[in-house]
Amino acid sequence: MNKNVAIGQSGGPSAVINAALAGIMAEMFGQPGVGKVYGLRYGIDGLIKGDLADLEAFRPDASGKNEMLSLLKHTPAAYLGSCRHKLSETDTAEYDKIFENFRRNNIGYFFYIGGNDSMDTLHKLYLRSQERGEDIKMIGVPKTVDNDLVLTDHVPGYGSAAKYIATSMLDMTYDLRVYDKPSIIIAEMMGRHAGWLTAAAALAAENGSHDELMIYLPEIVFDVDKFVRDVKDRLENTPKLVLAVSEGLRFADGMFVSENEIIAERDAFGHAALAGCGKALTHFLKSNIKIKLRSVEFNVLQRSAGHCLSLTDVNESLLVGKTAARRALEGESGKVICIRRKAGDAYEIEMAAENVGDICNKEKPFPLEWITDDHFVTEDFFRYVKPLIQGEPELAMKDGLPRYISL
Amino acid sequence: MNKNVAIGQSGGPSAVINAALAGIMAEMFGQPGVGKVYGLRYGIDGLIKGDLADLEAFRPDASGKNEMLSLLKHTPAAYLGSCRHKLSETDTAEYDKIFENFRRNNIGYFFYIGGNDSMDTLHKLYLRSQERGEDIKMIGVPKTVDNDLVLTDHVPGYGSAAKYIATSMLDMTYDLRVYDKPSIIIAEMMGRHAGWLTAAAALAAENGSHDELMIYLPEIVFDVDKFVRDVKDRLENTPKLVLAVSEGLRFADGMFVSENEIIAERDAFGHAALAGCGKALTHFLKSNIKIKLRSVEFNVLQRSAGHCLSLTDVNESLLVGKTAARRALEGESGKVICIRRKAGDAYEIEMAAENVGDICNKEKPFPLEWITDDHFVTEDFFRYVKPLIQGEPELAMKDGLPRYISL
Repeated sequence: MNKNVAIGQSGGPSAVINAALAGIMAEMFGQPGVGKVYGLRYGIDGLIKGDLADLEAFRPDASGKNEMLSLLKHTPAAYLGSCRHKLSETDTAEYDKIFENFRRNNIGYFFYIGGNDSMDTLHKLYLRSQERGEDIKMIGVPKTVDNDLVLTDHVPGYGSAAKYIATSMLDMTYDLRVYDKPSIIIAEMMGRHAGWLTAAAALAAENGSHDELMIYLPEIVFDVDKFVRDVKDRLENTPKLVLAVSEGLRFADGMFVSENEIIAERDAFGHAALAGCGKALTHFLKSNIKIKLRSVEFNVLQRSAGHCLSLTDVNESLLVGKTAARRALEGESGKVICIRRKAGDAYEIEMAAENVGDICNKEKPFPLEWITDDHFVTEDFFRYVKPLIQGEPELAMKDGLPRYISL
Repeated sequence: MNKNVAIGQSGGPSAVINAALAGIMAEMFGQPGVGKVYGLRYGIDGLIKGDLADLEAFRPDASGKNEMLSLLKHTPAAYLGSCRHKLSETDTAEYDKIFENFRRNNIGYFFYIGGNDSMDTLHKLYLRSQERGEDIKMIGVPKTVDNDLVLTDHVPGYGSAAKYIATSMLDMTYDLRVYDKPSIIIAEMMGRHAGWLTAAAALAAENGSHDELMIYLPEIVFDVDKFVRDVKDRLENTPKLVLAVSEGLRFADGMFVSENEIIAERDAFGHAALAGCGKALTHFLKSNIKIKLRSVEFNVLQRSAGHCLSLTDVNESLLVGKTAARRALEGESGKVICIRRKAGDAYEIEMAAENVGDICNKEKPFPLEWITDDHFVTEDFFRYVKPLIQGEPELAMKDGLPRYISL
C-alpha cells in the first residue's frame, strides 16, 4: 500500500527554505510506493491540529516540470508557515495527537526543515516513533540563516543571507562616502550567539582594504571603553566608518548590550528577542565622539530577501531536500542531511547524514581564530564564505517585481 | 579655443545619479570645441575650493566604449561626492572663488545634478553668471529619490528607490505571513514633505488585495486616536499587517510625529533630520494593542541600493544627462531638463527643458486625490508608478557582489 508524505517548515524563515521544500517534492512525487504529499500548516502546530495542506499542485508533469515548483524555489520565507513550538518532554497527549494524525493521513515519510530547535522537535518525534513502533521515515533538512548547526560545513539559508548583508553593506558604504565629513553607520545583524551573519559584512570590503569597516561579533566579550577608544583611533585615519555589529553582543557579565535599552521578551525556547544593540552602541559613541551617527538594522530582510539570492545557496538547498527524500526512500530515519566540503582549492561539496540527536540543541560559534585584533576576519573566513554567495538565479519577474507564490 | 566641462553632484545620493553623470560624459567627450571634463569633488564645495577631478579615464574609445563608463552607470550614491551647501545670497567672496575657478579651468559648460536645493545653487550661479557677463552654459540635471520636483512628470532616482521599497516590502510581507499569530511590521520610508516613496509600498500588494497593507503619507495630518482605531479595526479581519509610514508624518499642530522621540538636528537648509517616526507609532500601538510589533527603517538603502535598480530609471537618468549635454552644446543655459509623459496608454516620454528659477525651492506633494480613505492609493497612482520600476539592468558582478567604481 502507498504511503503518504508530510513536510513541515519550522523556526525562522529563510530565503531558500522553500527551495528545500521544492527539492523534497521534486524527488518524492511519482516514486513507487509514494502517494500524496502534504504540507504541515505552521510546522508541528499543523500536525498537532491536523492542519495539513495537500501539495498535489506541485506534482511535476510527464516531462518533470511544474511552474509552481519553479516559483516556489525562489519564494522567500516559509511557504507552509512556521512555528516556534517546543515539544514537551512529558506531555503525552501532544504526541498522541501527532501520531494519530500521522496514522489518519497514512504518513510513511516525514521531513522537517529547520534549525537546531526544529531538529529538537524531530529528535523527540523520532524517539517517540521508535518507542511506539511506528514505521515512519523521519529526516531533518537543515535550514538557518544563523549558520550555527554543528556537523555540517554550512547551512542552506546562510549563503543568501550573507549575500544580502554583503550587498547591502556595499551599497551603504558607497552612500557613506558621499559627503566630505566624518560619519559612522552602525549596522546591526541577526545572530544571537554566533557571529556568522555579522561576519559576512566583511565581504563588502573592496580591493583588499578594510579600513572603513569594523566588525563586532558575539564570540568576543564587548568592552565599552575599548570600543570607544578603538573607534576614535580608527577615525583618525579613516573619518568615515561602517560598523557591523551583532545583535548578540554581551558585556563581560553576560548581559546583552541591547538589554541596556529594552526589556527583552523571551520566546517559547527561552531565547531573548533582542533589538537595539546598534542603538545602544550609537549612544555610547554619541556621548564620547562628536560625529554624525546612523544606526541601521537589516531586520527581517536579511533572512527573507528573495530578491538577493545566492544561486549556490538555492541549488544546495534544493539538493539537500532531494537528498533527504532519497535517504528516506532508502529507509533511513532519524537523520539530518549535512553538507561536507571536499578538501582542495576548488569548492566542491558532498551530501552526508548525521544522527539528529547529535545535531539538535547545539550551536556552532564563529571560530575565534578567524577574528582579528583590528575588528576584522581572516583570509580563512573569506575562503570559507566566498563560494557560498556565488551566482544569481534568474528570477521570474512580473511588472518589475519578483514573482512569488503563497499558500 | 576649446572649452572645458565641469560636472557636480549635490544633495542626497541616489542609485542612478551616476547614470546621469555617465550620460553627460558620454555626450560631451569628443565634441568639437570641448576639451577636458572635470568633476567637482563634493558638489559646489569642490568648485569653491578648486577641488576638481579630471575625468579623462571615462573618455570613450574610437568605438564609443569605455568600461569605467559602463560600471559608473550602475554604481550607486554619488561618484564625485556630494554636499548640502546652501550658497549665500550676499557673500560675494564665495561667488568670486567659484567664478575664478571657472576661469582658471576654462569652464564653458557647467552641469549640476541634484534636487530642488541643488537647483537653488544652480539658479544662483546662473543669475551671477549673467550679472558678471560670464559665458558659461549652465544646465541642471534633476535627481531625487523624493520625486518632489515640479514641472517634471517624475525624477530620475525615484523609479529605483520605488522598486527597492516595493521589493523589500514584498519580501517582508512574505516574512510576516510565516507565523500563525497576529503581528505588525511598521516600515518607515524617507520623504520629509512628500509621500512618493512611502506610496511606492503599495506596489507590494499582490493580486489586487491590499488588506495586509496600510499606508500613511505626510500629505494627510496624522491623528493618533484615529490611527489606533483604524489599525484595531483592520486587525479584526487581517491579523497580520504591514504599515508603510513616512518619516515626515505630522500632527495637526505641524509637529513631526518623530519629534516625540528625538531632538531633531537641522541641516544647512534648515530641514530637520528626522528619524524614529516608525518607532513612535510602535509606541502608540504598544500601549493600546497587545500584539507583536516590529519597526523597520529602510534608511539609506532606499536611496543607494545599486543591487535593485530599475532599468527604466537607469536609462532615463542616462538620457536626461545626454539631453542636458546636447542642450548646453546648442547654447542653452539656466535650464533644467524635465521629463514629459506623452498622453496615451503606452508609457512614452520626451525630454523638455524648464527655467531653473521655476523649479528650485519648490516641492511637488503626492496628489491628495490619489490617497484613499482606507489608507491606500488609487489606480491612478499605479498607472503613474508602474512604468517607472520596469526592467532590471544586467549588473557586472564580481565574486557574487555587484561591481562598482570609486574615485
